[in-house]
Amino acid sequence: MSGILRLSHAEVRVPDLELALAYYTEVVGLIETTRDGDRAFLKGWDEHQHHSLILKSAPTYGLESLGFKVHEASDLDDLAAKIEQAGIETTRHAAGDLGPGSGDTVRFRAPSGHTVDLVHGMDQVGNAMPLLNPPIGPDNLTGMAPPRLDHIFLMAEDVDGVTDFFRDVLGFRLTEQIMSDDGYQLATFLERCHSTHDIAFLTGPDGGFHHVAFWVDDWNELRMGADKCAYHGVTVDAGPTRHGATRGCGLYFFDPAGNRNELYTGGYWFDPDDEPTTWTEAEMGRAIFYYQGQLNPAFMTVHS
Amino acid sequence: MSGILRLSHAEVRVPDLELALAYYTEVVGLIETTRDGDRAFLKGWDEHQHHSLILKSAPTYGLESLGFKVHEASDLDDLAAKIEQAGIETTRHAAGDLGPGSGDTVRFRAPSGHTVDLVHGMDQVGNAMPLLNPPIGPDNLTGMAPPRLDHIFLMAEDVDGVTDFFRDVLGFRLTEQIMSDDGYQLATFLERCHSTHDIAFLTGPDGGFHHVAFWVDDWNELRMGADKCAYHGVTVDAGPTRHGATRGCGLYFFDPAGNRNELYTGGYWFDPDDEPTTWTEAEMGRAIFYYQGQLNPAFMTVHS
Amino acid sequence: MSGILRLSHAEVRVPDLELALAYYTEVVGLIETTRDGDRAFLKGWDEHQHHSLILKSAPTYGLESLGFKVHEASDLDDLAAKIEQAGIETTRHAAGDLGPGSGDTVRFRAPSGHTVDLVHGMDQVGNAMPLLNPPIGPDNLTGMAPPRLDHIFLMAEDVDGVTDFFRDVLGFRLTEQIMSDDGYQLATFLERCHSTHDIAFLTGPDGGFHHVAFWVDDWNELRMGADKCAYHGVTVDAGPTRHGATRGCGLYFFDPAGNRNELYTGGYWFDPDDEPTTWTEAEMGRAIFYYQGQLNPAFMTVHS
Amino acid sequence: MSGILRLSHAEVRVPDLELALAYYTEVVGLIETTRDGDRAFLKGWDEHQHHSLILKSAPTYGLESLGFKVHEASDLDDLAAKIEQAGIETTRHAAGDLGPGSGDTVRFRAPSGHTVDLVHGMDQVGNAMPLLNPPIGPDNLTGMAPPRLDHIFLMAEDVDGVTDFFRDVLGFRLTEQIMSDDGYQLATFLERCHSTHDIAFLTGPDGGFHHVAFWVDDWNELRMGADKCAYHGVTVDAGPTRHGATRGCGLYFFDPAGNRNELYTGGYWFDPDDEPTTWTEAEMGRAIFYYQGQLNPAFMTVHS
Repeated sequence: MSGILRLSHAEVRVPDLELALAYYTEVVGLIETTRDGDRAFLKGWDEHQHHSLILKSAPTYGLESLGFKVHEASDLDDLAAKIEQAGIETTRHAAGDLGPGSGDTVRFRAPSGHTVDLVHGMDQVGNAMPLLNPPIGPDNLTGMAPPRLDHIFLMAEDVDGVTDFFRDVLGFRLTEQIMSDDGYQLATFLERCHSTHDIAFLTGPDGGFHHVAFWVDDWNELRMGADKCAYHGVTVDAGPTRHGATRGCGLYFFDPAGNRNELYTGGYWFDPDDEPTTWTEAEMGRAIFYYQGQLNPAFMTVHS
Repeated sequence: MSGILRLSHAEVRVPDLELALAYYTEVVGLIETTRDGDRAFLKGWDEHQHHSLILKSAPTYGLESLGFKVHEASDLDDLAAKIEQAGIETTRHAAGDLGPGSGDTVRFRAPSGHTVDLVHGMDQVGNAMPLLNPPIGPDNLTGMAPPRLDHIFLMAEDVDGVTDFFRDVLGFRLTEQIMSDDGYQLATFLERCHSTHDIAFLTGPDGGFHHVAFWVDDWNELRMGADKCAYHGVTVDAGPTRHGATRGCGLYFFDPAGNRNELYTGGYWFDPDDEPTTWTEAEMGRAIFYYQGQLNPAFMTVHS
Repeated sequence: MSGILRLSHAEVRVPDLELALAYYTEVVGLIETTRDGDRAFLKGWDEHQHHSLILKSAPTYGLESLGFKVHEASDLDDLAAKIEQAGIETTRHAAGDLGPGSGDTVRFRAPSGHTVDLVHGMDQVGNAMPLLNPPIGPDNLTGMAPPRLDHIFLMAEDVDGVTDFFRDVLGFRLTEQIMSDDGYQLATFLERCHSTHDIAFLTGPDGGFHHVAFWVDDWNELRMGADKCAYHGVTVDAGPTRHGATRGCGLYFFDPAGNRNELYTGGYWFDPDDEPTTWTEAEMGRAIFYYQGQLNPAFMTVHS
Repeated sequence: MSGILRLSHAEVRVPDLELALAYYTEVVGLIETTRDGDRAFLKGWDEHQHHSLILKSAPTYGLESLGFKVHEASDLDDLAAKIEQAGIETTRHAAGDLGPGSGDTVRFRAPSGHTVDLVHGMDQVGNAMPLLNPPIGPDNLTGMAPPRLDHIFLMAEDVDGVTDFFRDVLGFRLTEQIMSDDGYQLATFLERCHSTHDIAFLTGPDGGFHHVAFWVDDWNELRMGADKCAYHGVTVDAGPTRHGATRGCGLYFFDPAGNRNELYTGGYWFDPDDEPTTWTEAEMGRAIFYYQGQLNPAFMTVHS
């Protein structure tokens, strides 16, 4: 095995770290692993690694960086070489250098302007369950309690360009794409973990952040998540609904800083030799919101 | 990427091929791809490859062979070399040689006595949905209609031995194990696709076949599957229930020949650096049937 | 027992009877009982009575009439007397007079301008299942396949007035109400069958028809219903979502004529001595769409 | 409206009241309303009345009494007269006389030996939610958290006899019955609230108590209930499974004293003019456990 395994984590900017922490631990129901100055580290309850979400105190909302986990230590050198060959500078950071729990890291700036980390050896902290005769889960979970991070959705001015980079240089596979009538990619869905997407791009300003999605096990959890939103006065942006693209079901809502979150479930297994699915511009509404069949303009706006 | 990607297919013996076909297409709801003499080829509706289940006319029930899909053509040579190094003979078969749709294949006999194929390049036949602006699924599905194969569960006299072979030679990762009080493995769960198991072994006669499992998306589908069983007079063996080991939920039932099937959902994502979970012999009941907490003796009997 | 038992049926106008029939039988999945000239009679698969929905050929969409089932034959006389005492004329129709399957009927015009039937003794036609050792349901259901009618939602200029009439004269109980800042009722929910509502009224033009709702058993069925809509190109108006008022979950969509339908589930049991719940005008958005918290203006428009 | 409205409450014997309370509040998730000497009063979170379950300290497990709620105060006199006419003595108890919250009560001994209360005017204590702009539920529920009591299942030596009494004297309707090959009733299901059963009888010793069932909203809640059982080491007796009779789905488990509980969902609406369903003795297994199709002998044993 070699190369990128899956999406590892996202680092998100929040102006009020305490408020964001209260939201992410009590409403979303992530587990806080540690605090370190102006950053807090969180994970889904069933993740074993140190963190899948970092909250960073910053003047405004947005995405600071995202990280992918690689299979083996040697993948870092191989991928760094390919990225450099593609004319993009990389920096190397030893375990711990980028903060608590952080692994060996290759950092670079994607053509879409996003800071991307490739990571090996992040600290493993376990899922709070014994390795001997465990129950099927903790009994004291709070909020929506997603077991783990699922995918990230970004904006890029040149979706074709960044998609080529992710496919050719990083080895991602294209599962679905929405094509403009002029023949360029309006949105692309890319995976390494055989799901429908570890990462997706939508046409918009470079560096833009559309949402980060947490996995839940079924459609019922989306309703319970929406109940939690309503109970806590959290604005539901869209859903529970279904996507034509990926066939997954999702619920969108905002953290107190304005970063969009999704609870996501469903989708399908994607083999390396499966063909990507294409959506025409005319069917973009159905690709995004399969039931309503039309886009909510607010939903298409970059949020950070 | 290299090595084994996932479980590809199972070949199951049935004395009455017509009856078995009626059951697998109408009750289970698999799609028949083709017939070839005394064999019929089927797949889950969302599988793109030619088949994930082969029914073979034979005097009695049981497992004829199982197959794993590899990432790349070169994996076949690499794995064949490792298997030969382990003192096990392999044979090589060109695409089409082992039947309709079959890919390049390395065949060998596992230490547990099972015939195992490693396959690259099986025919892709698609999932009956367009690649342009598709709906989220066909509207005319029959029976339980699982989208795809999930895992296979076999018997072996020496579970420790075959588990070592699958880990050391084939590169599988151990996710869970049930240990006897004497310190040997009563059952092991092994994966390549980051789920809880592509294959599992239970102590029993070599060559034994416990069940083949098809994936469904949620707990609701298990109830609907059980409704289908009852409607068609198919014997439900156990469930809908939950397993302590893998945390997955399942429904067990028999095909007309006596081969055990499972509808399975749930489980969790397993990273290569996650630690396996261990169950003690005293907790084996809960590991298998989490709710009842005790084993159904019939369930533990090898069926073929 | 005496008085009104529950909502019995609705008669809906459709310009193209064939198209409407195709929609109600294939997409919604109702069972056609009979045709009679310009009318078609349908029922949910688990209803035993002759019809719960009548489609009537008419120049435009809208509600022709609605009917309630009473417990006993003598209830008809008692209720007719009360209605006449309230200054409203009634007419009496023998079984069969109002069409195939129709029972003894008292017909009158409610203060909101709607034609209302009180019915006893509609033909019982069974639910297509044997009364001896039945399965849990038919195996060949089509479309959304709701087992039965649930409630009806109407418009009235004077919601206070029609609500008083339904409570005082017909014996309905108020379960929930949305109050304007000026102290009048914007919407009311009324029941006889101990659910959250057999009928509801929303401020709007007299005689207006907001929607008719069919019961399904759970939230999962709403997603499957929405999948059916999308597959068949049926416009989803709202949902799957949840209501604050009644706590029920619903999916709204339109028949080809423009009549709004709902698939509904959830709600709660209401005892005769339970207190009604009140929503303020400021919270009306949450009362109707609990998750989004704001009204879709199109949703509030009378549709027929 | 007149007569019995629905099952109101059950009074269950427990040797260790503290242990039973811990179980019913933390595992089942009922709400404790009050304590009164050797009795504790509980209710489902969404019930408005003072109690639906009374735990009574007693040397062994079993049923002390059960109660039905009537529509109107005058129903008590009417029903008492009918019961006396049937040759059964009744006693009358003013509100409060039978304990905290108790309403006006007619008490008698059913032909099956069970103590039955008919109650009007039990204290209403609300469901802990505001009557103005409420959320869809409390956010701090514990355990399985059923919203309300559903039905009770008793044993009787002469099921035909007690069924006749419930139908003829108390006005219950028969929804389903299991008939012996000799033509007597092995089990009967009887309702007043238009569900499949408020009460059911199974052949067994007079005074026997099979189980008391709490309502949950869907099949998913049964899995979550079973997870709670397993987590807390509560013995699951059967399920999650489905019944052929009533079509409902259930999960059976025991309180620490040995009283059987059920979480129940599903079933169907029953009109007064619907015909009862009959099961033959040969199909009794499927009537009780629709999926396995055979009775668990332990399940058929009276437990108290």
